[in-house]
Amino acid sequence: MTLKTADTKPPRTKPAQVRLDELMNAAQTLFLEQGFEATTINDIVARAQVGKGTFYHYFASKNEMLDALAKRYTDYFLERLEQAVDACPADDWAQKLRAWICTSITVYVETYKVHDVVYINHHHHDRSNQAKNAILDQLLAIIESGMDAGLWAPANPRIVGLLIYSGVHGATDEIIAAQATDSLPFARAVADACMRLLPSPSCSDSGLTL
Amino acid sequence: MTLKTADTKPPRTKPAQVRLDELMNAAQTLFLEQGFEATTINDIVARAQVGKGTFYHYFASKNEMLDALAKRYTDYFLERLEQAVDACPADDWAQKLRAWICTSITVYVETYKVHDVVYINHHHHDRSNQAKNAILDQLLAIIESGMDAGLWAPANPRIVGLLIYSGVHGATDEIIAAQATDSLPFARAVADACMRLLPSPSCSDSGLTL
Repeated sequence: MTLKTADTKPPRTKPAQVRLDELMNAAQTLFLEQGFEATTINDIVARAQVGKGTFYHYFASKNEMLDALAKRYTDYFLERLEQAVDACPADDWAQKLRAWICTSITVYVETYKVHDVVYINHHHHDRSNQAKNAILDQLLAIIESGMDAGLWAPANPRIVGLLIYSGVHGATDEIIAAQATDSLPFARAVADACMRLLPSPSCSDSGLTL
Repeated sequence: MTLKTADTKPPRTKPAQVRLDELMNAAQTLFLEQGFEATTINDIVARAQVGKGTFYHYFASKNEMLDALAKRYTDYFLERLEQAVDACPADDWAQKLRAWICTSITVYVETYKVHDVVYINHHHHDRSNQAKNAILDQLLAIIESGMDAGLWAPANPRIVGLLIYSGVHGATDEIIAAQATDSLPFARAVADACMRLLPSPSCSDSGLTL
């Protein structure tokens, strides 16, 4: 044990978590600026001002760094959705579902450049991935809670979940492509449309579904 | 002009369209079997039993061949959808929309391996592409015809079109991943759910959309 002096200086080395975050931020910035392929591990450690050994302490390869960035992005997305849902009155499942849909759209519009970089290897034929599953499960939990509360009674809740999940993603791609400045009116219109997928238990299933 | 004899043999060379189709089929088969990257132009002309000059007569590169295969696939998809819609009674727009949704799902399940090969360069961040636009336009035309006929009155028909287009695609990815043997019951359940997005003009917009 070393003797502490009164004027103890802060440690010269940063806490491991801070150093890891800075390294990941440096990689993400470079991937955004110049693309994943064009970025080397040397570029990343130079930007983060750490040695190459630090990189390899955390990641076996550039691809592993990309996987970690994708996981971090998914976690961020899930957390934003959870915060929006939790901010609604307890047991107001319609409000929670609308908040989930609107927040999905606004966060995706805010962050799509990072989304595109970190999911660069998720092609459409990569049909089952953990990020999709975690987000879909969150949505299905809201749909099921509303069913348990007697608020709605979809014939096939999983199909409704898939339609909302994929539909929201696809619809949002359109406003990203259109470079709309305010996504909120669009998000509300999408939520309005999606709510129709959840008929109240008293609602007849006949009519246009014939 | 050469003098024809009575026992004229068929020409040794095939019509240009047949030769082009065979060349494209050879490329598609090889892309499916061994992947786009691993396939060379030499492989393609060997499989099609033509000279390399024939390839370059039609295509400047392997990427141009891929673009042509993607266009052929999209045209096939659109034609299958059109046939299914045209087979419904004239002016029965609900039936036509259900046929469009069910056929989208069944054709996508049938052909997803080709879909994945020919659209290999269509990443999710490629947000505006001609194939999507052509298929979406076909769907929107059915939705608008039903509106003109007074059958339904969605608040925002384009959003409904985007939700159905993307939702059907995403929902189908799930049964492809699950390797379901019969996609028709699933397709009907998806169509049932989607039809709810189109309220009849007399329908109140209150209730769950509050």
